[in-house]
Amino acid sequence: MKRTTEKNLMVFSGRAHPGLAEEVAQQLGTGLVPTSAYEFANSEIYVRFEESVRGCDAFVIQSHTAPINEWIMEHLIMVDALKRASAKRITVVMPFYGYARQDKKHRGREPISARLMADLFKTAGADRLIAVDLHTAQIQGFFDGPVDHLMALPILSSYVKEKYGHEKLAVVSPDAGRIKVAEQWSNQLGGAPLAFIHKTRDINRPNESVANRVVGDVKDRICVLVDDMIDTGGTIVKAADALMADGAAGVIIAATHAILSDPAVDRLKNCPATEVVVTNTLPIPQERHFDKLTILSIAPLISRAIREVFEDGSVTSLFDGHA
Amino acid sequence: MKRTTEKNLMVFSGRAHPGLAEEVAQQLGTGLVPTSAYEFANSEIYVRFEESVRGCDAFVIQSHTAPINEWIMEHLIMVDALKRASAKRITVVMPFYGYARQDKKHRGREPISARLMADLFKTAGADRLIAVDLHTAQIQGFFDGPVDHLMALPILSSYVKEKYGHEKLAVVSPDAGRIKVAEQWSNQLGGAPLAFIHKTRDINRPNESVANRVVGDVKDRICVLVDDMIDTGGTIVKAADALMADGAAGVIIAATHAILSDPAVDRLKNCPATEVVVTNTLPIPQERHFDKLTILSIAPLISRAIREVFEDGSVTSLFDGHA
Amino acid sequence: MKRTTEKNLMVFSGRAHPGLAEEVAQQLGTGLVPTSAYEFANSEIYVRFEESVRGCDAFVIQSHTAPINEWIMEHLIMVDALKRASAKRITVVMPFYGYARQDKKHRGREPISARLMADLFKTAGADRLIAVDLHTAQIQGFFDGPVDHLMALPILSSYVKEKYGHEKLAVVSPDAGRIKVAEQWSNQLGGAPLAFIHKTRDINRPNESVANRVVGDVKDRICVLVDDMIDTGGTIVKAADALMADGAAGVIIAATHAILSDPAVDRLKNCPATEVVVTNTLPIPQERHFDKLTILSIAPLISRAIREVFEDGSVTSLFDGHA
Amino acid sequence: MKRTTEKNLMVFSGRAHPGLAEEVAQQLGTGLVPTSAYEFANSEIYVRFEESVRGCDAFVIQSHTAPINEWIMEHLIMVDALKRASAKRITVVMPFYGYARQDKKHRGREPISARLMADLFKTAGADRLIAVDLHTAQIQGFFDGPVDHLMALPILSSYVKEKYGHEKLAVVSPDAGRIKVAEQWSNQLGGAPLAFIHKTRDINRPNESVANRVVGDVKDRICVLVDDMIDTGGTIVKAADALMADGAAGVIIAATHAILSDPAVDRLKNCPATEVVVTNTLPIPQERHFDKLTILSIAPLISRAIREVFEDGSVTSLFDGHA
Amino acid sequence: MKRTTEKNLMVFSGRAHPGLAEEVAQQLGTGLVPTSAYEFANSEIYVRFEESVRGCDAFVIQSHTAPINEWIMEHLIMVDALKRASAKRITVVMPFYGYARQDKKHRGREPISARLMADLFKTAGADRLIAVDLHTAQIQGFFDGPVDHLMALPILSSYVKEKYGHEKLAVVSPDAGRIKVAEQWSNQLGGAPLAFIHKTRDINRPNESVANRVVGDVKDRICVLVDDMIDTGGTIVKAADALMADGAAGVIIAATHAILSDPAVDRLKNCPATEVVVTNTLPIPQERHFDKLTILSIAPLISRAIREVFEDGSVTSLFDGHA
Amino acid sequence: MKRTTEKNLMVFSGRAHPGLAEEVAQQLGTGLVPTSAYEFANSEIYVRFEESVRGCDAFVIQSHTAPINEWIMEHLIMVDALKRASAKRITVVMPFYGYARQDKKHRGREPISARLMADLFKTAGADRLIAVDLHTAQIQGFFDGPVDHLMALPILSSYVKEKYGHEKLAVVSPDAGRIKVAEQWSNQLGGAPLAFIHKTRDINRPNESVANRVVGDVKDRICVLVDDMIDTGGTIVKAADALMADGAAGVIIAATHAILSDPAVDRLKNCPATEVVVTNTLPIPQERHFDKLTILSIAPLISRAIREVFEDGSVTSLFDGHA
Repeated sequence: MKRTTEKNLMVFSGRAHPGLAEEVAQQLGTGLVPTSAYEFANSEIYVRFEESVRGCDAFVIQSHTAPINEWIMEHLIMVDALKRASAKRITVVMPFYGYARQDKKHRGREPISARLMADLFKTAGADRLIAVDLHTAQIQGFFDGPVDHLMALPILSSYVKEKYGHEKLAVVSPDAGRIKVAEQWSNQLGGAPLAFIHKTRDINRPNESVANRVVGDVKDRICVLVDDMIDTGGTIVKAADALMADGAAGVIIAATHAILSDPAVDRLKNCPATEVVVTNTLPIPQERHFDKLTILSIAPLISRAIREVFEDGSVTSLFDGHA
Repeated sequence: MKRTTEKNLMVFSGRAHPGLAEEVAQQLGTGLVPTSAYEFANSEIYVRFEESVRGCDAFVIQSHTAPINEWIMEHLIMVDALKRASAKRITVVMPFYGYARQDKKHRGREPISARLMADLFKTAGADRLIAVDLHTAQIQGFFDGPVDHLMALPILSSYVKEKYGHEKLAVVSPDAGRIKVAEQWSNQLGGAPLAFIHKTRDINRPNESVANRVVGDVKDRICVLVDDMIDTGGTIVKAADALMADGAAGVIIAATHAILSDPAVDRLKNCPATEVVVTNTLPIPQERHFDKLTILSIAPLISRAIREVFEDGSVTSLFDGHA
Repeated sequence: MKRTTEKNLMVFSGRAHPGLAEEVAQQLGTGLVPTSAYEFANSEIYVRFEESVRGCDAFVIQSHTAPINEWIMEHLIMVDALKRASAKRITVVMPFYGYARQDKKHRGREPISARLMADLFKTAGADRLIAVDLHTAQIQGFFDGPVDHLMALPILSSYVKEKYGHEKLAVVSPDAGRIKVAEQWSNQLGGAPLAFIHKTRDINRPNESVANRVVGDVKDRICVLVDDMIDTGGTIVKAADALMADGAAGVIIAATHAILSDPAVDRLKNCPATEVVVTNTLPIPQERHFDKLTILSIAPLISRAIREVFEDGSVTSLFDGHA
Repeated sequence: MKRTTEKNLMVFSGRAHPGLAEEVAQQLGTGLVPTSAYEFANSEIYVRFEESVRGCDAFVIQSHTAPINEWIMEHLIMVDALKRASAKRITVVMPFYGYARQDKKHRGREPISARLMADLFKTAGADRLIAVDLHTAQIQGFFDGPVDHLMALPILSSYVKEKYGHEKLAVVSPDAGRIKVAEQWSNQLGGAPLAFIHKTRDINRPNESVANRVVGDVKDRICVLVDDMIDTGGTIVKAADALMADGAAGVIIAATHAILSDPAVDRLKNCPATEVVVTNTLPIPQERHFDKLTILSIAPLISRAIREVFEDGSVTSLFDGHA
Repeated sequence: MKRTTEKNLMVFSGRAHPGLAEEVAQQLGTGLVPTSAYEFANSEIYVRFEESVRGCDAFVIQSHTAPINEWIMEHLIMVDALKRASAKRITVVMPFYGYARQDKKHRGREPISARLMADLFKTAGADRLIAVDLHTAQIQGFFDGPVDHLMALPILSSYVKEKYGHEKLAVVSPDAGRIKVAEQWSNQLGGAPLAFIHKTRDINRPNESVANRVVGDVKDRICVLVDDMIDTGGTIVKAADALMADGAAGVIIAATHAILSDPAVDRLKNCPATEVVVTNTLPIPQERHFDKLTILSIAPLISRAIREVFEDGSVTSLFDGHA
Repeated sequence: MKRTTEKNLMVFSGRAHPGLAEEVAQQLGTGLVPTSAYEFANSEIYVRFEESVRGCDAFVIQSHTAPINEWIMEHLIMVDALKRASAKRITVVMPFYGYARQDKKHRGREPISARLMADLFKTAGADRLIAVDLHTAQIQGFFDGPVDHLMALPILSSYVKEKYGHEKLAVVSPDAGRIKVAEQWSNQLGGAPLAFIHKTRDINRPNESVANRVVGDVKDRICVLVDDMIDTGGTIVKAADALMADGAAGVIIAATHAILSDPAVDRLKNCPATEVVVTNTLPIPQERHFDKLTILSIAPLISRAIREVFEDGSVTSLFDGHA
C-alpha cells in the first residue's frame, strides 16, 4: 500500500499578537488554523485546534510580549497539543524571543533563562525555531536543532534610506556593545559615518556619576540611532539627548523590537528624535501609538522565511549568506 | 584528599505564597534562603539566590495560584538557577500542582498539560516532586522520577471529627467520579454513611436540562461534602443546595485546595453550608476570607514530608502505607 | 539527485493474536509482512523480517494477552528490529495495553508499570501508539508522543441497539468509577436510564461485609451491564446477580477486552446474563467460547484508524471529535 | 540543617533464583528486603517492597532463566519501583545476562536484543550493571554507564586444579571463537597445552556434512573442555566425543552458565565426560541434578563485588586488573 | 498550502580522503557539495557548506585515517553544521570506523572508545551510519539507530578468484579469532581448504617465547591470507613467513582496511607474499604504493549502498541477506 | 549494612599541559592519578588509569592547545573511562575552552562548534565544567549543567598594579566588543581611564581599507592593552602600534590565554609593547618564551576553585559575587 507523500503547511497563532500572524498567513496564501484558546477561572490556559493537524508542517507564531509568561506558556501548550495530535514537524516562530537578555550568569546563582526557554520548547516538542534579531547571536546555540535567525535590518534600513537618503547621515549605536549592527547599517546607507555613545564614569569620581559621551563626529548630521529593542527607552533617549548636545542636526531612532514598557512612550514623545521607526514583532496597542512612531511590518520577512523552510529553499539567501 | 560527605537542607520559596513556605521552613528549624526575585518592565522574571547553594539538598516551594503561568515560570527559573549553581538534589514542592485537570485529551487535538508540566520541571532540573492531593493519582506517572504524593485527608478529617463527631453525619461526594475519597473520609469518621450527587440529564429531554440528584440517604444528617478543590464553587454549591432540598440537617464543605476563583466566595457565603474547611495549599488573601471559612495549615504535613525525604525516612509511613 | 517521496504502509504482527492482525491487514488491502519468530531452547525470543522494511510506515500489532510478558517482550524486540532495519516511522498497535491497571502507586513502593511500558516502547523505537479503550485515559499522557485512543463503544452499542433496541433498557455500570462510559452508552441507546452497582460496606459492621447495592431504577428493564474489561469476571457476575435480585427483566453484559482468566468462563456461563458481548482485542481460544458469548471484531476500527494515520487523515473524526 | 550522609546497602531479589540471592545477602551480613511479588490472573506481575528503600544503595539480583521474558520483566518492574521509591542508586545484578547471544545482526532485519536489554534497564532506572561472564565482552559497551564484568574462571579453575592438577591435562575450547578463554584456563592450570574443536565442512562435499576436528594434541591427556554456557549441550557433547575419538584419556567439562535446556541433561549424562563443573548463576532444579554434575557457588564472587562497589573499593582488583 | 514531498540526495566529504568521496559521488551521478574546510592557526577546524542543504538527505563521508582525531572531529563538526542547516536526514559514512578496536574494556579503567564514537556522532546529529567491515560486528549495537554494515569480501574475493582461481588455493586466517571471515572466503573460492595461524606460547617455557604455528594443511598451496585490517603489518607478515616455512607454494594477502602505519610498507615489501590486495577505504598516499600492492575501489559498494538507502531499497540484498 | 559516605578528590591530567595539572594537584595537597596514555600507530589514543577511581570526585584537566582535536579527543576518552570506571562525579576542567570562538553561526551553514563541544563532553559523561575566561559568557549556557566560570583578571591585574601602579595608566581594549572587560580592569587599577581601538573602514573608500583609530585619551599614558586571548597576535600588535602613534608613553599587553600561533611570537617581540603578561592556561613551550614575556600561573585559581567545588563552598565568592 503505497502513496506519494504530501506536505501540508499550516500556520497557528497564539493570542499574544494575532494581527501579525494573520498577516503572515495571508501572505502565504492561507489562513490561520482555527484554534480555541482561553483561560479557566484560575488562569490556566486551554488550547484546542478545531481541525485535523495530522501530518502537517506546523508553524506556530507567538510574540513574547507582556504578560510574557502567560504567552510563553500558551506557546508551549500549543506545541504539546500539536505533538500529541501528530503534526509532522513543528517550527516555533518567535518574532521576539522572550528572556533573551538573561543569556548568561551576570552574577553567581542566576539562571540562564534564555537557555531554559530553548530547552522548554524542545521538551514540548519543537523541532526548529525561527526568531528575529536575537539579543545575542549565541542564543542560536542554546537550541538543540536548526534555528533560522532573521534580520529586520533590510526592512528598517530601506525605509530610512528612501526617506532620509538624501540627507547627511550618521549611524549611531547607543551602546559600545552593539557597534557591529551599526556597521551593517552604515553599509546599507552607503557608508554613512559611525558613532556611538559611550557611558563613562567620571574619571575623577568613579563611583559617582555617569556621562553619555558621543564618540565619532555627528555634528550637523541626521543621526540614525539603532538598537535591537526599546524597552523603557531610558538608554536610547539619553543617547538622543547627547547627540543633540553634540551638535547633531537631528535624530531618527530605529529598532526591531518595540517593547515600549512604561514610561517608554512618554520618553520617546518628549525626546529630540523626530521619528521612531520600529517593526511589529511585538504588538503595539493603539493607545501606545504616537505621531512620530512609524511601524513597519515584519510579516513579509517571516512569511518569506516560512515559505523557504516549507519548500526546502534557503533562508540564508534572504540575507546574502548571513545567518 | 578525603572528607566525610555532609548534606545540607535548604528551603526556597517563590513569590506566590511565601507565608506557607516560611511556616514550613520554621517547622524545619531553618529559614528560607534569601532570594531576589522581581519582574523586569516587560514582565520577564529575574531570580537570584543571595547565598551559596552549592551541594545543598534543595526544596523549592511554589503554590501554583493565579496568575498561574507567572508562578510556574518563576518556579522553573528557580530550578534552573539551582541546577546551574550546583545544588546536589532539587526537590520541587507543589502544594497545588498546576494544570492537573488537563491530565488527558478530553477531545482530539488537546494538549496534556499536566504531563507537559512534569516534563518542563524535569528539563529545568527537578530530581523529584512533592505534591498534595493530585487531581488524579495517575499524574504521579507523568514525572520521570520519584513523586511523593501527600494527602490532606488526615488534617481535614480530624478537624471535622473533633468538631462534628458527636453529630449524625453523612459523607457526600459532589461528583460520581470522586467516591473513593469520600470512602476514605467515611473510614476516618467512624463509618459515616456515604452519598453523592449524580448529575443527570432528564431522560425525556436529554439535550436540555441537568438535575442534581442525591444518591444515598442524607435525611436529617449533617452532610460533609468533600472534594479535592473548590474553583468557582458552582458544582459544590449546587450539591449543597440539593442536599438541603433532600432533607439534610446541615452541610459542611471540606476541600484541600481553595482556588476560590470568582464568584466562589459569593457563592459559598450565600450557600446553605455552615462551614467551609480548606487548607492553605494556595494563598487565600484576606479579602477572600469570610465568616464560615476555616483554613487549616498544610505546613506541618509538608515539613514532615521534607524531613523524611532529607533524612531518608519514609513518607509512605505518614499515610499508613498509602502513596 | 532528486526523487518524489513515497510512503509504504506495512503491517506486522507478533504471535499473540495473529488472527486479528490478518483481519486488519486484509481490510487494508495488504498482507502481513512475513516474519520469522520463535523461541530458543532457553525461551529467548528470536525475530526476523523476511523482506526489506527500509523506509516503510510500520504498524506493529500485538495483543497483550497471557503469557503477557512474553508477548510484550516480543513486541519490543520487533520494534527494535524495525528501528535497526530503517523503518521510517514505527506505530505500535496495542488492541489491549498490558499493565494498564498499574497506572499509579496504590500504595508506597509500588511501580507504575503502565508508565514503564510506555517508556520501554519509546526506548525500543516506537514513534507513536494506537490503543483501544485504555483503562484510564490518563495513560495517553504516559507516552511521550502521539497516542491514538480508539473506542469500541460504537461497535458494541450498535450491535446491542439493533438486537435489543426495541426493549425497555437500562445501562448499568458495575462500578461507581466508570459511570462516564455508561453515560456514553446511554446516549447511544436513545437515552436509556442509567444505573450502577455501588459496593458498600454494611454501615453497622463496616469491617465485615460488602454488599452490592443497585443505584438507579432497573425494575422490569433489560440491563446492559458495561465495563472496559472482564478479567476473572467476579465483579461483573456479582453485579448481574444484584440486578436480577433488584427486579431486572434480564441482563446483557458488554465489554471491550475479554481477558477471561479462570474462572471467568464458568462464572459467566452460570450467571443470569443472557448474552455476553465482547470484542476480539484479545484472542479468545475456541475452548473458551460458550453459547451466550458474542464476539464482535475490532479489526474494522483498527484498520480504519491505521488508514487515517497513514493518509494523514483524522482519527478524532472517527469518534465525533473525542480522543 | 546539616547531617552526615550515610549509605545503606539493600539487597533485593526477584523470584527467578532466590536461593542465590539469599546466599549473596547472607555473605554480606544482611538479609533480602522483604518483597511482595506475584502474578495477576492475566499473568501481569505485581511487585511491592515491604520496607522503606528511600536513599538506599540498591542491588537487585535476578537470574535470567526460563521463562526468561517473565523474569526480565519482573527485574525491570522492580527497578521502576525502586526508582519511584527514591532509592539513591540502583545496581542491576545479572548473574546471567539474558539475550546476550543476540549481540549483533547475524542477518539483515534482526534485532540486537542484547543492546535492547541494556537500554530497557537504563530506561527503567538502572544506574549500573554487574554481570558474570558476558557472552561477548563488547556487551559492556551496550550499557550507558558502569558495568562490572565478573569472571567465574578463578572459581572454576581452582576447583579443577585442586582435583585434577596432578593429572596430565589439556585445555580444550569447543569452538574456534572462544580460544582466548581457554588460554586463560591454561595459564591458571600451569600452562596446560591448548586444543580446540574445529567444525569443518568436508572439503569434497562442502554443502553436505560437518565434522568436528580436534586441533592440537590431546592424546592420553585429561581434557578440560571449557565454555561460557551449556544450553542444549549439543556442541559440547559432540566435542567430548571427538576428543575421546582422538585418544583423550578423559574429559572434564567446565562452564559458567548451566542453562541446561532439554535435552542437555540427557546428553551430558550419556556423554564420555566424567564430570561437568558449573556455577549456580542460573537455578538448577533438583530434578536436573545428576551424578557427575558439580555445582560451585558464584555467590562469594557476587557478594565480594557488591561489597567493593558499596565501599568504593576495586572490582578490577578481584581479577588482577582485568575487567 | 500543499506540495508533494521531494527528496534530494547530497554527498559531502571531509578532507581525509576526498578521492574516494568523489568517486562515490560520481557513481551516484552527482558531485560533492562544495564545502569550505580549513584549520585556524591554533588548529581548530572550520567548516561551511557553500550551497543550501535544507531538507536534503545528507551522506557525509570521512575515512578515519591518521591524524584520526582531527578527521573524526571534522566529521562531527560537519554533522553539526548539517543539523543546524536543516538537513532532513544525516547518514554518516565511515569507510573505516575509527577506534573500532577499543570495543570493550580489555582491562579495568579503560574507555570503550568505539561506543563513545557512536555516541558522539549521535549527539552531533547523525541519524544513521554506514560502515565497511567493522572490527567486530557487535559495534553495530553501539549506535542507537540503523547501521548498514557493508562487506568488502565480494570485491576482494572476486578479484582473487579471477586471478588465482585456477591455482591450488588455501584460505588462511592470521589469528584464531577471525576464522569465520576465512570461512566466508572459502565459500567464495569454491571450498578452498582453511587454515590459520595459532600464536602459542612454548609449552615448556610458557612465559618466554611465542611461536606461530600453522594449523591446517597448506603444503604446496597458494595461501590467501585474509584479515580486516593491516596496521603495522607485524602479525600478517609473521603469518606469511610461517606459511612459507610450512611448505606453502606462495602467499597472497587480502585485507579491507589498509592502515599501513610504519613500518607496514617495508615489512610487506620484504615479506614472502607476492601480492597484497586491499581496498581504498583509507587513503594510501602515492609514496606508500609498492609494486605488489593492488588497490581495489570500495566506491562501487558504498555508492550502491547509498543508492539503496536513498531509494528505500535493500542493503541486505547486496549481501544475500547478511548484515 | 550502613556506612558513612566519604568523598575522595582525585585529579587527572591529559597530556596537553601536564605541568599545569601537576601544579594544581600539588596545591591541593595531592598528586595526579597515574595514567597511561599514548597513541597507537594509526594515531588512535589509548588511556587507562592505574589505580581505582571508583566513587571518586574526579577533576580532569586538559588544556585545549594545538593539536587541539587530539587533546579534546583525549579529554573525552578520559571522561568515558572515568564514567565506566564508576567515578561518582566528573568535573571537566578546561583552562582554555576549545572552539570557543565558533559560538554562533557567523554565516549560514556553519556549525556552532562551541555548543557541540559542550554536548560532546556531556555525552562522554561530564557532570560539570570549570573553565577560565570563556570567549563569550553565553558559552556557559551551552552546557546542560553547572559551569564554574573563573576569571584571570585578579591575577593579571594585581601583577600589573604592583609593577605599574605608580605610573599614569590607561586601560585599552583592542576591540569595541570587549570594553566591559576593560572596564573591570579600570576598576581594579583605581579608575584608570578607558580607551579602545576602533577598526574603521575609511569613509571615503568603504570597501578598501581599514584603519585602527584610538578612541579615548591615551597621550603620555602607559597603556594596558587587555584581551582574552592572543592567537596570531595581529590585532593586538596593530593596536599597540596605533597607541604609540597616538602618543602613548608605552604599552603593556595583558591577556589570559597565550595561544601564540605563528607568527605571534615574532610580532610581539618586534612590537612597541614592553611587556606581555599572560597566564599559563595553555602550555608555552620554552622556545616560544621571549624576554618581555611574563607568565603568571593560573594554578592557584584553579586549585582554589576545585577545593571550593569539592567542599561545597562558593566559587562565586572568589570573584565578589560574579560568575
